[in-house]
Amino acid sequence: MRLAELSEHSGLPTATIKYYLREGLLPPGRRVSATQSEYDENHLRRLRLVRALIQVGGLPVSTAREVLAAVDDGSRDLDSRLGAAVNALPHGKESTDPGNDVSAAAAAETARELVSRLGWDLAPASPAYRMLLRAVAGLHRLGYPCDLGSLMPYARAAADIAVSDLDLVESLETTDARIEAAVACTVLYEPVLLSLRRLAEAEESNRRFGGGSRSGQE
Amino acid sequence: MRLAELSEHSGLPTATIKYYLREGLLPPGRRVSATQSEYDENHLRRLRLVRALIQVGGLPVSTAREVLAAVDDGSRDLDSRLGAAVNALPHGKESTDPGNDVSAAAAAETARELVSRLGWDLAPASPAYRMLLRAVAGLHRLGYPCDLGSLMPYARAAADIAVSDLDLVESLETTDARIEAAVACTVLYEPVLLSLRRLAEAEESNRRFGGGSRSGQE
Repeated sequence: MRLAELSEHSGLPTATIKYYLREGLLPPGRRVSATQSEYDENHLRRLRLVRALIQVGGLPVSTAREVLAAVDDGSRDLDSRLGAAVNALPHGKESTDPGNDVSAAAAAETARELVSRLGWDLAPASPAYRMLLRAVAGLHRLGYPCDLGSLMPYARAAADIAVSDLDLVESLETTDARIEAAVACTVLYEPVLLSLRRLAEAEESNRRFGGGSRSGQE
Repeated sequence: MRLAELSEHSGLPTATIKYYLREGLLPPGRRVSATQSEYDENHLRRLRLVRALIQVGGLPVSTAREVLAAVDDGSRDLDSRLGAAVNALPHGKESTDPGNDVSAAAAAETARELVSRLGWDLAPASPAYRMLLRAVAGLHRLGYPCDLGSLMPYARAAADIAVSDLDLVESLETTDARIEAAVACTVLYEPVLLSLRRLAEAEESNRRFGGGSRSGQE
């Protein structure tokens, strides 16, 4: 399809598509004349992912470019490409509250125990693991519950979600489609999860403490 | 205790505590002389919550003040206070991708069905519900899976987490302690949940696609 059709099918203005082409977020089309290129389904699918990362996920263009480079690294297997792409995503901001060694050590110990109980075989240097350590250290420093008993329900919930998400990824046919969907859903489902947690907690609080009436809660 | 002791017990510089007092985030102590006030355990607990919201959670001071006003509204029951406090928290940024009516309507229908299946009795105007609608509309707009089958595992995981979190809240003795812990943990456990989801997905991906080896994933 031509640029105009790519624009129509994707719902994106041609100017936006040209911008993504210039920024290297979208691979060039197949040149068919001095002024025209031909695009295909792969371009459409890539545009979806770019929108997911930038327009919905709010990633800076440079971060999105890093994520896409990992997605496109055909020399590696699906798991490695997916891991590298997710590692390139933002992993929350650093706390402005300086940590201390006691809390950091306690967090490391708890996280190690958690991962060991779950039988997970993780890369300990991964950004997600460091994000977990920061979060647990923050809880520890402030004296809020962050022992294995408090963390385990979160980990089990995360494991349940991962099985369902990877089922979905596995249902797709090509490796490219699988990786792109997995990366997009990693980003796009985060607000789904956080909002559902708040709703579930409001529901549970109402059940326990609110007498079942929602008046005054709106 | 005096200000110096409050500083020592909380680990916060006196200048920071004075700043929180000036900003109305910490209630004044009981004045015992022209230059000295007496603080108690309630001040210590409140300081923990303020640090959770501002230093770890990254909330602006004005938002933290709104949250604390809801926490302190003694005219309402625990559920209402908690609901109002959580509603005052940030609920993610708006997408820069303009929505369309079709996706918004589809998201509203899916969310309604989801909540109905779960038997949740929610305030539909709540910020968390609107955040869910935005997220699902974004998925729909980009053509990523967002039907009931994809969302339900997230909702069930959220419900499991809510039960465990509210068990913890209920184990605390006073209403004030319960609300403060609930609000702090709402904020502080979000990065725990997001990081654990990424770790669980890396684990699941490795199990399915990576042949069990983690080489190249760091």
